[in-house]
Amino acid sequence: MDKLIEKAQILSEALPYIKKFYGTTMVIKYGGSAMIDAKLKETVIQDIVLMKYVGINPVVVHGGGNHISDLMKRLGKEVVFLDGLRVTDKETMDITEMVLTGAVNKEIVSLINLEGAKAVGISGKDGMLIQASKKVQSDNKDYGFVGQITKINPKIIEVLAQEGFIPVISPIGFSEDGHTYNINADIVAGEIAGALNASKLILLTDVRGVCRDMKDESTLISTLKISDLPSLKAEGIISDGMLPKMDSCIKAFETGVEKIHLIDGRIEHSILLELFTEGGIGTEILRG
Amino acid sequence: MDKLIEKAQILSEALPYIKKFYGTTMVIKYGGSAMIDAKLKETVIQDIVLMKYVGINPVVVHGGGNHISDLMKRLGKEVVFLDGLRVTDKETMDITEMVLTGAVNKEIVSLINLEGAKAVGISGKDGMLIQASKKVQSDNKDYGFVGQITKINPKIIEVLAQEGFIPVISPIGFSEDGHTYNINADIVAGEIAGALNASKLILLTDVRGVCRDMKDESTLISTLKISDLPSLKAEGIISDGMLPKMDSCIKAFETGVEKIHLIDGRIEHSILLELFTEGGIGTEILRG
Amino acid sequence: MDKLIEKAQILSEALPYIKKFYGTTMVIKYGGSAMIDAKLKETVIQDIVLMKYVGINPVVVHGGGNHISDLMKRLGKEVVFLDGLRVTDKETMDITEMVLTGAVNKEIVSLINLEGAKAVGISGKDGMLIQASKKVQSDNKDYGFVGQITKINPKIIEVLAQEGFIPVISPIGFSEDGHTYNINADIVAGEIAGALNASKLILLTDVRGVCRDMKDESTLISTLKISDLPSLKAEGIISDGMLPKMDSCIKAFETGVEKIHLIDGRIEHSILLELFTEGGIGTEILRG
Amino acid sequence: MDKLIEKAQILSEALPYIKKFYGTTMVIKYGGSAMIDAKLKETVIQDIVLMKYVGINPVVVHGGGNHISDLMKRLGKEVVFLDGLRVTDKETMDITEMVLTGAVNKEIVSLINLEGAKAVGISGKDGMLIQASKKVQSDNKDYGFVGQITKINPKIIEVLAQEGFIPVISPIGFSEDGHTYNINADIVAGEIAGALNASKLILLTDVRGVCRDMKDESTLISTLKISDLPSLKAEGIISDGMLPKMDSCIKAFETGVEKIHLIDGRIEHSILLELFTEGGIGTEILRG
Amino acid sequence: MDKLIEKAQILSEALPYIKKFYGTTMVIKYGGSAMIDAKLKETVIQDIVLMKYVGINPVVVHGGGNHISDLMKRLGKEVVFLDGLRVTDKETMDITEMVLTGAVNKEIVSLINLEGAKAVGISGKDGMLIQASKKVQSDNKDYGFVGQITKINPKIIEVLAQEGFIPVISPIGFSEDGHTYNINADIVAGEIAGALNASKLILLTDVRGVCRDMKDESTLISTLKISDLPSLKAEGIISDGMLPKMDSCIKAFETGVEKIHLIDGRIEHSILLELFTEGGIGTEILRG
Amino acid sequence: MDKLIEKAQILSEALPYIKKFYGTTMVIKYGGSAMIDAKLKETVIQDIVLMKYVGINPVVVHGGGNHISDLMKRLGKEVVFLDGLRVTDKETMDITEMVLTGAVNKEIVSLINLEGAKAVGISGKDGMLIQASKKVQSDNKDYGFVGQITKINPKIIEVLAQEGFIPVISPIGFSEDGHTYNINADIVAGEIAGALNASKLILLTDVRGVCRDMKDESTLISTLKISDLPSLKAEGIISDGMLPKMDSCIKAFETGVEKIHLIDGRIEHSILLELFTEGGIGTEILRG
Repeated sequence: MDKLIEKAQILSEALPYIKKFYGTTMVIKYGGSAMIDAKLKETVIQDIVLMKYVGINPVVVHGGGNHISDLMKRLGKEVVFLDGLRVTDKETMDITEMVLTGAVNKEIVSLINLEGAKAVGISGKDGMLIQASKKVQSDNKDYGFVGQITKINPKIIEVLAQEGFIPVISPIGFSEDGHTYNINADIVAGEIAGALNASKLILLTDVRGVCRDMKDESTLISTLKISDLPSLKAEGIISDGMLPKMDSCIKAFETGVEKIHLIDGRIEHSILLELFTEGGIGTEILRG
Repeated sequence: MDKLIEKAQILSEALPYIKKFYGTTMVIKYGGSAMIDAKLKETVIQDIVLMKYVGINPVVVHGGGNHISDLMKRLGKEVVFLDGLRVTDKETMDITEMVLTGAVNKEIVSLINLEGAKAVGISGKDGMLIQASKKVQSDNKDYGFVGQITKINPKIIEVLAQEGFIPVISPIGFSEDGHTYNINADIVAGEIAGALNASKLILLTDVRGVCRDMKDESTLISTLKISDLPSLKAEGIISDGMLPKMDSCIKAFETGVEKIHLIDGRIEHSILLELFTEGGIGTEILRG
Repeated sequence: MDKLIEKAQILSEALPYIKKFYGTTMVIKYGGSAMIDAKLKETVIQDIVLMKYVGINPVVVHGGGNHISDLMKRLGKEVVFLDGLRVTDKETMDITEMVLTGAVNKEIVSLINLEGAKAVGISGKDGMLIQASKKVQSDNKDYGFVGQITKINPKIIEVLAQEGFIPVISPIGFSEDGHTYNINADIVAGEIAGALNASKLILLTDVRGVCRDMKDESTLISTLKISDLPSLKAEGIISDGMLPKMDSCIKAFETGVEKIHLIDGRIEHSILLELFTEGGIGTEILRG
Repeated sequence: MDKLIEKAQILSEALPYIKKFYGTTMVIKYGGSAMIDAKLKETVIQDIVLMKYVGINPVVVHGGGNHISDLMKRLGKEVVFLDGLRVTDKETMDITEMVLTGAVNKEIVSLINLEGAKAVGISGKDGMLIQASKKVQSDNKDYGFVGQITKINPKIIEVLAQEGFIPVISPIGFSEDGHTYNINADIVAGEIAGALNASKLILLTDVRGVCRDMKDESTLISTLKISDLPSLKAEGIISDGMLPKMDSCIKAFETGVEKIHLIDGRIEHSILLELFTEGGIGTEILRG
Repeated sequence: MDKLIEKAQILSEALPYIKKFYGTTMVIKYGGSAMIDAKLKETVIQDIVLMKYVGINPVVVHGGGNHISDLMKRLGKEVVFLDGLRVTDKETMDITEMVLTGAVNKEIVSLINLEGAKAVGISGKDGMLIQASKKVQSDNKDYGFVGQITKINPKIIEVLAQEGFIPVISPIGFSEDGHTYNINADIVAGEIAGALNASKLILLTDVRGVCRDMKDESTLISTLKISDLPSLKAEGIISDGMLPKMDSCIKAFETGVEKIHLIDGRIEHSILLELFTEGGIGTEILRG
Repeated sequence: MDKLIEKAQILSEALPYIKKFYGTTMVIKYGGSAMIDAKLKETVIQDIVLMKYVGINPVVVHGGGNHISDLMKRLGKEVVFLDGLRVTDKETMDITEMVLTGAVNKEIVSLINLEGAKAVGISGKDGMLIQASKKVQSDNKDYGFVGQITKINPKIIEVLAQEGFIPVISPIGFSEDGHTYNINADIVAGEIAGALNASKLILLTDVRGVCRDMKDESTLISTLKISDLPSLKAEGIISDGMLPKMDSCIKAFETGVEKIHLIDGRIEHSILLELFTEGGIGTEILRG
């Protein structure tokens, strides 16, 4: 009985957080280890479903780079990266779209359904959600069908969320002249969070957060302001894969998001930890 | 961090229960020690507010016998009980109504508000919620303004609940010829649960549940069927104060409630324990 | 038949007034003799119910000082007034709340119900209607739990009115740190009228209106402008109990009310007389 | 002041009737003297507007035989009646439609608007309200475009009433093969009352009511049942112009109307007299 | 089969136009030959009904000068025109209203109903649609009840359109002092188009469009800007009956209409031709 | 101009069909040549978009067998058919889902968007649309993940259609124990048509319709009743690929569809031809 009362006590301690987030929208960028490890997958999905039931409106944007490379290899197609970007010819684009919207997306939908909520998986083509154009690269190199967002039409997400569904979104854009574009999932999550006036954007990563020394977790920066970014970049603290995440953050703040959390998807129930316990985990990024 | 992960795990274990109860209405009869002890009061109120936030629609019916007797004594008015029923002359009725609706009810409203939800306290007169008549006693004795319910008009509760308020109800009825009646709070809770098609009626008591030997908690009956009542009464297991509670149960089942829980209000977070942990506590009463 | 035709003619003459007020909200401060004399009570209640049926949205705020003093005396508690204000210690506050919300309020609700409309009685705690703080007195004296309004949350009134109920409000406020405050009912009526953008605030008093010489009804001032107040105060024409009423008026004008009527509650059907006959009665107070 | 208080008293006496009729639909057949005499016209219109403002939903069906005959004469067209029915050739039908929908209807609309409500005048063609066919005469004689109702499509009336307009209806029907029919206005009022589940059908006539001796008003029958009609017809008490009115009543009862009032349109405010004073006037006709 | 495929092809070619106009409101001024010739009448009505079915919201304003003169002559009333305007005494006004609202309007309603949509015919009195006053003539001559619009209350049109009805409007206005006014139908169409923020105003005329030489259709001006009007008037290209049409256009542009089409009602299906084929017909008039 | 008038005439001839189908739901099974040939694809998509714009609610269910086999071959996976059914092991199921929902579905969505409507592509997993179980084969052979429908949850389709989107559905089902099933698209179309109470189910095929001699189009059966099927099967007229189509028809009739059209997808605009021209094409199948 004492054990049970302690459990009830813990539930009860979540109340202030539940109140605080009630009725708000949160966009979760789901990727990395948390999309591969079976146990982590299970706890992420449970966290998302719990969010829905305690009155939060979760919107999931997923990545899936590994799955794309896997199929390309099986099809004997060479995977080419140039300066960290996947060179995407027409065939690569077709494979990317098929893997993301036809395999990764549907698996997430399936897992959410099995956990007891109702998900609907869409890509940026559905309801014309993500209008895009060929990404203009600063270096004038041609990476193929790598796109940048020109407009978000959030109506389809709003309709689904309002009717009780959890939207699961593949980061695929389309252009008015009929092309399909592969878009960085962090960027998509940031712009969608902005278009929905989300209260939070949660980025699941494979790191502990932003650390002064990425190899030493004890140097974790718990809170940083968007205005700190230039100096952090200059110092080399923010680099590589963290760069598009920070671009996503800047975009999200520009379009109305209040707070961003960069958390470690390798920890079980990392989303619940962030939302419903004191202090939170990872790096919290603020406007201003 | 391990402690935090364990907490997240416990939150996550509540998910199946949250899903099960989502969108349902539950009526809580609030009385006894849980209305006197400060710490217990706090946890009951927290439990009720948490219910609201995880998608349950809680409706509170309160008692308050002790408070009535207190004021009567201060006013030099004799408290008379006849066969376990308070003899209620006009002055006693006035005091009863004033104490229940003007003191007890407003304190509960206040506590819920302070805990972060929005309560509205009403009596059976408001919105003509509880129509009543003088209770016909089997013994033909006259107990004064002790009433029995003739009709529940649940619209005011539905309006408040739908707009996000938690209704808190004093067990006072009115008659079409202008009289005010004192009604047993267990009976009121049962009939309101029925009128609202509540999924559960939860009776907070000062006992562990129904026990074969009320002096020995180890003889707790975890589950009983309404059809077991006659033999339990015959054996003397159900008697005294438990009798109106059982009448309330019979009435509630007649009018559509699915399940009734008689739980021990002397345990902290007893409502959460019942709803969100395996096994539950107290005695569960079933139709059939 | 001629008598009947004359009656029909009189009904028909009310049409222009009914049209004028259709769909508007009016706040009635109900107090004084009209709350004590049985016949006057009956006609005030009839007038309020008639207002509801001809398309006006009446909101009632009641007083009840006499009832409070009565119970205090019965409880052997001394009634202390200091400079015309009731000194309100914790026990006095408890009695005040109990009498206003548990006795006076419920009696008005009952009378309205019996007259054929549906009332719901609430206090400033319900739905967090009246947020308050300790009143800062200009003289630095301590009058105890005498409050001033910090915020009106009118949603609960709007919900009730829209669903066809007549809201009846006790002038009790609460603070975020859990205290209960007694607030002048005229002031409450004025601020609620403002928060609801009421078309009229009607103050039922025990005088004929504002008179140049309060002892001579023939000196009644039929219409005065809010800008006339300073000189009327200076002349001593407005003094004593009329002062908080005038403060209520100033507040009501500041927050959006169009017109205020100070009428004689000692006349039967005084509200109908004011609203539905030419000329009206009492003193009409205008902005500007 | 005493005069004013008496007026307020009279208004107040209307309250029980207003409550009783609140939210119900009433169909008024408007014709006869009340459509010609200027003063009577004014009071009928005032009564209809007052009905709207006190929460009744009035629907007006008008006649206009005299106006038709007037224009026919001016156009040199012979007015032919055969057995009391207007023989209606194509030209007569055109004149009838033009006079009823283009002159009589619009005048009523105008008067209601000037009195402060908003009327919309339609004929049975608008919104396909009244589907009709050539009336089958028992005597096999051909009266031309005299129609009988085959179907009422009440949606247009419901839409107008719900949006706050008072519908004013000309008794013109149309057939699916494109013909226009003149239909007895009493019959139209009865069938529309039925289709709308009206609480009352009010027939304004030029007689005191149904009298045992139509020449002696003191023989007025205050209440009769529909089952009394055969014997009253057999006795010759109901004859001539009263016959279609009684057919209208039978039809109205068949389709759901509760009560019918045949009242004297020559009395000022006859509708208010009937609805809002004790006893009423004219003949009340009941089901059963 | 080839013939059928060609038909399907033609239907399919209408798609871009249907998409473009979907959900917009268009006001059609219906008059001239298209209201007299049986075959033209049929195709105009078919076009209007088709508009409704492909998602356009058509609103019809009709003329009817010839019909008025016909009845006046039959009634032996002299038809007087002064400077091109009908001199309208009280009797002429009565005839005008009766013919327009009681004959012309109802015929159009009937034809639309027979074609399978549901029309409701109203005049400017219904729902107080067109408030008007006596037209002030620049020459100070008195033309009688010729009116100018003071206010459009479009609610009745919006209600009808939203409920799926096609509104058909007679150009009759009323004043607050109870007078009825005859108003130029082109002007009414223009102001209603403005009040409804119509996407198009379509004027059916008996000419090919605006031609440099009205006697030579080959001089048709396909597109003109409202700013071209002064010079076109100065050149005498726009004169006589074309003048009120151009005033209507100016008014419509002032109040929010985007585009106006002046088309030849003597061509079958002229509305469909304008809307659903490339190039359109007649003269298109643009802002600016 | 004559050519244009003829076009307008043809548009106008579609009106009776548009009226007839207005507001109804139609399910289109899209497969075969019409999904491969570029020109046919274009006309099918145009037809579907036109349906939406003229007030029909089109729901698309697509096939895609060829695309699946293509990818399997590229991946070096053997394509095995047993008795005409694709043997579907886990890997084949993964490929099937990926191709149908990630490639075929998104291409259709893209084409509809480019044509000017808004499509949303989902599979049977989204919104838990298609619950399924392993198909019980009459021969007890194991074909792997070939499923049969156990329940349709049409809410997601209704939500999308109501908000103006065109739903495009991949024939993938899921079971409550987490498996994915490949289901015959004809069967899916039939059951969805039934669940939506569709007015029509349209099956696009690569044949002229049901022919007495499938090699001779002149033997086309224009209309057949569902009760004719047993004898047609017995005669061998219905066999092979036509069998599941007929099973789909039976199922659709059982669940409420009114009419089924089996049409030749190799003809341009075959849907428009069927819906909007007299006689229609292909074979019409009726209940009874």
